[in-house]
Amino acid sequence: MSLDWLSLPCQNVDKKSEQLAREHQAQLTKPPGSLGTLETLAIRLAGLQHTARPAVQRVWISVFAADHGVAAEGVSAFPQVVTGEMVRNFANGGAAISVLARSLGAMLEVVNLGTVNDPGDLPNVRRAFIAPQTENFCERPAMTAAQLDLALRAGAESVAAAREAGAQLFIGGEMGIANTTAAAALACALLGELPSRLAGAGTGLDAAGIDHKAAVIARGLARYAADDDALTWLGRVGGFEIAALTGAYIASAQQGLPVLVDGFITTVAALTATRIHPGCREWMFFGHRSRERGHAQTLAALNADPLIDLGLRLGEASGAATALPLMRLACELHSRMATFAQAGVSGA
Amino acid sequence: MSLDWLSLPCQNVDKKSEQLAREHQAQLTKPPGSLGTLETLAIRLAGLQHTARPAVQRVWISVFAADHGVAAEGVSAFPQVVTGEMVRNFANGGAAISVLARSLGAMLEVVNLGTVNDPGDLPNVRRAFIAPQTENFCERPAMTAAQLDLALRAGAESVAAAREAGAQLFIGGEMGIANTTAAAALACALLGELPSRLAGAGTGLDAAGIDHKAAVIARGLARYAADDDALTWLGRVGGFEIAALTGAYIASAQQGLPVLVDGFITTVAALTATRIHPGCREWMFFGHRSRERGHAQTLAALNADPLIDLGLRLGEASGAATALPLMRLACELHSRMATFAQAGVSGA
Repeated sequence: MSLDWLSLPCQNVDKKSEQLAREHQAQLTKPPGSLGTLETLAIRLAGLQHTARPAVQRVWISVFAADHGVAAEGVSAFPQVVTGEMVRNFANGGAAISVLARSLGAMLEVVNLGTVNDPGDLPNVRRAFIAPQTENFCERPAMTAAQLDLALRAGAESVAAAREAGAQLFIGGEMGIANTTAAAALACALLGELPSRLAGAGTGLDAAGIDHKAAVIARGLARYAADDDALTWLGRVGGFEIAALTGAYIASAQQGLPVLVDGFITTVAALTATRIHPGCREWMFFGHRSRERGHAQTLAALNADPLIDLGLRLGEASGAATALPLMRLACELHSRMATFAQAGVSGA
Repeated sequence: MSLDWLSLPCQNVDKKSEQLAREHQAQLTKPPGSLGTLETLAIRLAGLQHTARPAVQRVWISVFAADHGVAAEGVSAFPQVVTGEMVRNFANGGAAISVLARSLGAMLEVVNLGTVNDPGDLPNVRRAFIAPQTENFCERPAMTAAQLDLALRAGAESVAAAREAGAQLFIGGEMGIANTTAAAALACALLGELPSRLAGAGTGLDAAGIDHKAAVIARGLARYAADDDALTWLGRVGGFEIAALTGAYIASAQQGLPVLVDGFITTVAALTATRIHPGCREWMFFGHRSRERGHAQTLAALNADPLIDLGLRLGEASGAATALPLMRLACELHSRMATFAQAGVSGA
């Protein structure tokens, strides 16, 4: 197996469609610029989708689930068995993202990359089982090179399936007990930041729990030289789902499919993806600002300004899915409003 | 005619339904509190709608249009003829709120309270014509007591129609050239603030235009003693649509119908409504934070924290409509997610 695919070029952005969309916005019956971000969303999407009339009706959501060896350090408020239980909950339609996907008419795929509590084959769950969990990164690298390769590819496979299904937007999500620990460790490595700055409450740690989590991360990071590359760090302290998201974001840009990034963990994957392949940044929209400590700084490193800020911190792609209607309405307004000429409305 | 109805009591909030909703949220398969504002939205709505399972599928939008005598002072980037032209555009389905209402499946009513450029009878437009425009508040009171009464009632009539149609949420919007001038004047009077602090760009004034607008407002306010009551100020410097919105917000609370407030002008109407009848505040949700100068301070006076902040400044209820899907998803999550017991998922 080879990781050469990671450096394949991203699709180009169509500046002509972008310009046509910009000119169209200026003709719609509203003061120029008065729809704010809804205007810039439509214009950016026009360039990415190579059409002056973009749309995000057909949306694909992949939720990547995986367990983490570092859970053994007691860094989560919930027991590790929950990852597998939640995969079953996704399959049965009871989780937040299940409800959101149904309500939004989005296609939802759940990918089991490896859970200690293995729910086995389930309807609506793609099994891409790499191992029951990663290694505890305090003691050894989280994954082997072969495992990293598999996880990255699992993400790319989801993007291929999304393209096959005609998706106009890709949303990635994650589930994995202890994965805010892995994500914070990875963000610390990439940003040169202290664990005490990026470790957060996750599913509900108290202040002492967060201090312990930061110490665990510091212990893991201390095993290595600081200046290694993003892909190396991803294998050392990341998780299968974080690697899958990283692979998915890179593959999306290569396939010409815009992505809507979710919360803290997916944003760390997005940061990792841009460090591996800077061209993929242009394909990213950001759904929400999570309450998880560390998200603000990771977003800032990506120069990202999410659509909503509602104090969410659930993951599962729930924040991105919640923000999706804003993108859809931006496209509807762009395509369906009357122009000044059509409506016979006077200009400024 | 009498304004006695304004002081009729608001409906009570059902604390028991609110508590049942709060307890239900705690059982859903997610870390406690991890859906942030989406949780508190559902819980508040439960109390207002007197059910542990609230919903905002059936939504009524009233857009109140009116012209303003103060437009003669050159305070808008657009000519006054646009108000009537936009009423026609609403009727024909080409305006932003027309597109949004269709996309959201919301009921849309347009109310013509008085336009200089009179489009006459139109399909989808309720004619509640008070006068072609208000008086120029720099020279005399914007409206007579009888006109104020009619405008307030027009708002209450829209709420009655919304209730009749089975609406679960009321959204008010406005259209009227120069109405940010009237709204800023009213906000200055109610908040004891300087016009230079609350006058903004409206549909697109430059810095000199904003300075002129502030001077016009100052001239209007200087005609009166500062400490009069909100209703008096509404008649002196407000507009027919601002009064209609004020009446609608009070009537909504009296009828037990939650409202989603839009941008700067509607928020000034909401502030006026709470000054007339403080009990109606509890029935208000706030859709968005507008870019219009003065909105932040008006929101702060209401202790309001809007759902989105996307740089919108269009009016027409467009910001509230854009935020509506967030309330709907909050209700969907609340009602359709599995509990820990149902899903067999372990707790913290």
